[in-house]
Amino acid sequence: MPEGKPLVGITMGSSSDARIMRGAAEALDAFGIPHEDSIVSAHRTPSRLAEYARHAEESGFRVIIAGAGGAAHLPGMLASYTTIPVVGVPILVYADKGPAGRSSAFGGLDALLSISEMPSGSPVGVMGINKARSAGIYAAMILANEFGHIRESLRRYKRERHEAVVRESDEMARTGLGSSGAP
Amino acid sequence: MPEGKPLVGITMGSSSDARIMRGAAEALDAFGIPHEDSIVSAHRTPSRLAEYARHAEESGFRVIIAGAGGAAHLPGMLASYTTIPVVGVPILVYADKGPAGRSSAFGGLDALLSISEMPSGSPVGVMGINKARSAGIYAAMILANEFGHIRESLRRYKRERHEAVVRESDEMARTGLGSSGAP
Amino acid sequence: MPEGKPLVGITMGSSSDARIMRGAAEALDAFGIPHEDSIVSAHRTPSRLAEYARHAEESGFRVIIAGAGGAAHLPGMLASYTTIPVVGVPILVYADKGPAGRSSAFGGLDALLSISEMPSGSPVGVMGINKARSAGIYAAMILANEFGHIRESLRRYKRERHEAVVRESDEMARTGLGSSGAP
Amino acid sequence: MPEGKPLVGITMGSSSDARIMRGAAEALDAFGIPHEDSIVSAHRTPSRLAEYARHAEESGFRVIIAGAGGAAHLPGMLASYTTIPVVGVPILVYADKGPAGRSSAFGGLDALLSISEMPSGSPVGVMGINKARSAGIYAAMILANEFGHIRESLRRYKRERHEAVVRESDEMARTGLGSSGAP
Amino acid sequence: MPEGKPLVGITMGSSSDARIMRGAAEALDAFGIPHEDSIVSAHRTPSRLAEYARHAEESGFRVIIAGAGGAAHLPGMLASYTTIPVVGVPILVYADKGPAGRSSAFGGLDALLSISEMPSGSPVGVMGINKARSAGIYAAMILANEFGHIRESLRRYKRERHEAVVRESDEMARTGLGSSGAP
Amino acid sequence: MPEGKPLVGITMGSSSDARIMRGAAEALDAFGIPHEDSIVSAHRTPSRLAEYARHAEESGFRVIIAGAGGAAHLPGMLASYTTIPVVGVPILVYADKGPAGRSSAFGGLDALLSISEMPSGSPVGVMGINKARSAGIYAAMILANEFGHIRESLRRYKRERHEAVVRESDEMARTGLGSSGAP
Amino acid sequence: MPEGKPLVGITMGSSSDARIMRGAAEALDAFGIPHEDSIVSAHRTPSRLAEYARHAEESGFRVIIAGAGGAAHLPGMLASYTTIPVVGVPILVYADKGPAGRSSAFGGLDALLSISEMPSGSPVGVMGINKARSAGIYAAMILANEFGHIRESLRRYKRERHEAVVRESDEMARTGLGSSGAP
Amino acid sequence: MPEGKPLVGITMGSSSDARIMRGAAEALDAFGIPHEDSIVSAHRTPSRLAEYARHAEESGFRVIIAGAGGAAHLPGMLASYTTIPVVGVPILVYADKGPAGRSSAFGGLDALLSISEMPSGSPVGVMGINKARSAGIYAAMILANEFGHIRESLRRYKRERHEAVVRESDEMARTGLGSSGAP
Repeated sequence: MPEGKPLVGITMGSSSDARIMRGAAEALDAFGIPHEDSIVSAHRTPSRLAEYARHAEESGFRVIIAGAGGAAHLPGMLASYTTIPVVGVPILVYADKGPAGRSSAFGGLDALLSISEMPSGSPVGVMGINKARSAGIYAAMILANEFGHIRESLRRYKRERHEAVVRESDEMARTGLGSSGAP
Repeated sequence: MPEGKPLVGITMGSSSDARIMRGAAEALDAFGIPHEDSIVSAHRTPSRLAEYARHAEESGFRVIIAGAGGAAHLPGMLASYTTIPVVGVPILVYADKGPAGRSSAFGGLDALLSISEMPSGSPVGVMGINKARSAGIYAAMILANEFGHIRESLRRYKRERHEAVVRESDEMARTGLGSSGAP
Repeated sequence: MPEGKPLVGITMGSSSDARIMRGAAEALDAFGIPHEDSIVSAHRTPSRLAEYARHAEESGFRVIIAGAGGAAHLPGMLASYTTIPVVGVPILVYADKGPAGRSSAFGGLDALLSISEMPSGSPVGVMGINKARSAGIYAAMILANEFGHIRESLRRYKRERHEAVVRESDEMARTGLGSSGAP
Repeated sequence: MPEGKPLVGITMGSSSDARIMRGAAEALDAFGIPHEDSIVSAHRTPSRLAEYARHAEESGFRVIIAGAGGAAHLPGMLASYTTIPVVGVPILVYADKGPAGRSSAFGGLDALLSISEMPSGSPVGVMGINKARSAGIYAAMILANEFGHIRESLRRYKRERHEAVVRESDEMARTGLGSSGAP
Repeated sequence: MPEGKPLVGITMGSSSDARIMRGAAEALDAFGIPHEDSIVSAHRTPSRLAEYARHAEESGFRVIIAGAGGAAHLPGMLASYTTIPVVGVPILVYADKGPAGRSSAFGGLDALLSISEMPSGSPVGVMGINKARSAGIYAAMILANEFGHIRESLRRYKRERHEAVVRESDEMARTGLGSSGAP
Repeated sequence: MPEGKPLVGITMGSSSDARIMRGAAEALDAFGIPHEDSIVSAHRTPSRLAEYARHAEESGFRVIIAGAGGAAHLPGMLASYTTIPVVGVPILVYADKGPAGRSSAFGGLDALLSISEMPSGSPVGVMGINKARSAGIYAAMILANEFGHIRESLRRYKRERHEAVVRESDEMARTGLGSSGAP
Repeated sequence: MPEGKPLVGITMGSSSDARIMRGAAEALDAFGIPHEDSIVSAHRTPSRLAEYARHAEESGFRVIIAGAGGAAHLPGMLASYTTIPVVGVPILVYADKGPAGRSSAFGGLDALLSISEMPSGSPVGVMGINKARSAGIYAAMILANEFGHIRESLRRYKRERHEAVVRESDEMARTGLGSSGAP
Repeated sequence: MPEGKPLVGITMGSSSDARIMRGAAEALDAFGIPHEDSIVSAHRTPSRLAEYARHAEESGFRVIIAGAGGAAHLPGMLASYTTIPVVGVPILVYADKGPAGRSSAFGGLDALLSISEMPSGSPVGVMGINKARSAGIYAAMILANEFGHIRESLRRYKRERHEAVVRESDEMARTGLGSSGAP
């Protein structure tokens, strides 16, 4: 992780979300943005919601990235306690389908709606299901308003992605999609 | 409302939910169960969540009935703060579809899942969409474990409903469903 | 299982639901609450619905926990026959996808709606999909109105969960989410 | 209604379903099939389920048409009690959206799945949402196995529908769909 | 397969549906009901729809069982061509998810609605997803109107299922659901 | 309607679909493309499916536009009978919600999936729900491969739409969105 | 609208979206944040996407608020062209259900998913359906990182909302929910 | 791949879509239709959208086949830039469920709606989920308007499929569906 005072707080509802939320950390690392990682469960540690919001404000976080699955109250509750922009990641844990585990019965729609359908006035900026990496990049876009070098990194990142696709397309134009012969 | 120390707390996320939540009050009134009505918005008054939970425990509430729509975090957050059983009512306000109003885009599925898909260990007993009256009756069923006269009232209520249906059915058997003649 | 007169009846629509419903038994066991386990199929043994309701009332059950999948009529039908509060668990059996097996095509939404959308007056307190453990804890919350030591156990359980999350979070703050370097 | 011993029992969960279920009566009337109309609420009159099933068998009903909305347990419970084929009509009452009324939040999907996802061995033949008229016609198709004149009526009905469409199409071919001129 | 003139036609849209539709054949076999099995693809062999309907009428079929997945037009098209009652089985093939295979993206909801939402007047009696066995039993229920011994077999089948559940329940009451000790 | 030999057949399942399908006629008219309008009900006139397909091929139709709601078998069945490209319009009739009317319970999803989930090899090009106008424009795009002046008309149409949006945007930039002052 | 160089660009896919998007303008106005309003249709003016993105970067916009319904490509396409954070508003126009109008068949789910399910690396921060006001407030939260007085306004706004709810709750505690007497 | 000037452009949003899109290439190859394969990412290479549209027009492509998953903007954006008919394939990649991978949480419904719910005037002809082979056949149907030998090939293809089903059905009629004996 990059050194320096954290600008972004990454938090999640459960240690089992870490596998997904690592994508946010990786994106921030790639842009050299220091972050602080923690677990705040809206349901198992409700009193820590207010504490975390206060800590985030005192620490000068510019963005909070919050991931949660199922009822997914964490991002919205943090947005209720603070005016720091919260980026929400609806989490769908595919492998965790046991009797007492987190239900993935709704394909993440439960978490997506639970984060997006916040009442007017307490908004969360929602990402796609499991798109923690996007959350890291979105945080970088917000930080780029203050930090010019992050804007530059984002532009370089876009250019490189563009070039990678062009290379892939050239390769495909050369080889074609292949053919087995029968319609 | 029946007099006496309230045994049930009815609370909701917004004054616009009162139109629906009145059904819970009416059911409790009919069974002579005193209740206290209030508004606690998980998102507009997050600090009141812990306060309300403490107040409910100190007041000796046996049941909390909590109604909320959209992201619907109220029932689950109260269940996180207390060990009093919470009965959740997912609310769908049909008439409130204006630009800035509460979205009813998902037919209440958003609220239903946001309340039901709580993690193991912080359960809420969920009712059907807008079934506030059912919440009042379910609270009466819980209270009937302690108060024998409520059990009696519930049995009488069931008998009366049974008889009403029998009367309706007898009427229909006599008149038939009517006929317009063309298939 | 704890000894003593059962306070809770756990019942389910099929022996294949036992794998999920065990979570309810485990939760009750952990709180020292005696329970009686059985199978009542609304569709294969409809005449046992009334019998079970009578047995539950005569036995002094305070709560009935009923799990069912698919059309999932069991919880609602029991609620129709008795005034004991019924806690419903919509069941989704993931592994059972064979031609004649129980269909899991709707991710449990069929069972969830079949239990929650009961008419006013015959409510079931619904849990999330497969959340049998939550049903056990919810039953404990209802019983805690009468039995003070269960209230204490529930509070201890909440405290321990809180502390476990704090420990996990401290560990994550120390190690970070890890980083692979590329956005 | 045609006179004679009823061959079909039409039943429904509530008097408010009569508006929809009338379609079944009208179709049977048009084919001259005598029927008996009644209300059996799975949740308000559960003890009448077994009674109705016995009555249907003793009356020699060839088909039971059962309509229900929401949790919609009636068709499936009747199918559990009898071996007479049950034709189920999932009901969605559009106008009934008040606070304590029947929820139509799921567009009838709740009722459809609650009737169709019965376990193997207790099948119900499900119609489309609110398709009570289709239920009457389906019952006629079943009765046509025993009563040749109903088969004839069904064939005449199909022919007439065919001719009506041909007339409508000829009319449209003559007049066209109309044109306002701007794409 | 039982010998004798077939009373039921089992047909399906593709040979890959045979794995599911076998359940219908097995149920009919168990009740001693002769059936004829075939493949009619609404989309690959549309001209065979009318042929099959004519063949079914000439053969004296009492019921047609038709299974199809995806757009699932077969049951409804057969119902358009004949007045024999059609029992429809929406098919969801779980294992067949390759690029060009049948899409199971909608969990069978596509097939269920495509069969159930037929216009009034051309009804199909729909079973649950993949419930081919139920289709066989439903056909037996229809045939029992004409053939008393099938009625008897169906009653015996129901009794045996009832007894099997009672035995399972007695076993569970004896052994309990088991316990691991931690909530 | 433009004169000349029809190049496009517009057909629909019911005269009540005409209100929606008129959009296709209007779009074709605007591009000067002659079309023939008719009704073919897959379920009420199944024998006309093959007839229509033959008629379309003999008439030299380049495109068939087929609209249908509910089970919506018409577009797919026509695609089964002919090699002329079929453009399908899933129809949702909002006003038609009476007991025996066409169900609009699924918001058109039933019709959309019934048309799109055709098996490989019998494709239909599906438009959005009720997008009959788009179907007319899509037909024009297909015809533009053969008729250069239609290509020109399409380009002009696109230019004009572009300019209309620019004018609207300029107007909005001048007046702003308006303001009421309170957040 | 507040004077000064615009910090936020509000844009939308159609002039019919203005009714909803006005909420964003009102929120920004209330916080004194200057904004520029325009229409960019991804489908009718695709060449303006790149132009708008360039204009936004040259104008120094800190946030782009983009609203769109149906296929809703606008927010995601703008996010593809620029590194300015895009806040997306899925739009559902309730009144616009005519034949050729924008389909609201999916309750806004189509627009929500079309905006949220962007690939990793081109994120949009999505708001709830029609929550344009929330988009304005979220933009203010992002701007508050740079402009301290906006942070203060946001805190005041939260305090005032808190107090308004407390007043409403006190009123309800005094008057109760009302009672009609019958359960 | 057949030689000659390409008549169809196959393009897709990502190299991971190639596995699905190969079906389109195979179908075109089987009909001897030359095609050009490439990758154009609406989000990673937005500036290539206009370029590709121009290239397609200059190359004389008669049809563009565009596949994309998730937000799936590619087909609609290409349809915005050109008047060549676009055939859209909503892609659902089953195996790709990792943290940063493409989300398949919605079973392809996200992609299907994102392509089909285009505004009037910019239509895309949508295929079923992952039905790339169907897209190739649909392109052949469009080309058959100009090239008579493709019409012939399509007819032969239909005949051969018909005969294959008849053979399968004859085989099944001979062997039956098999029987295990227990209902």
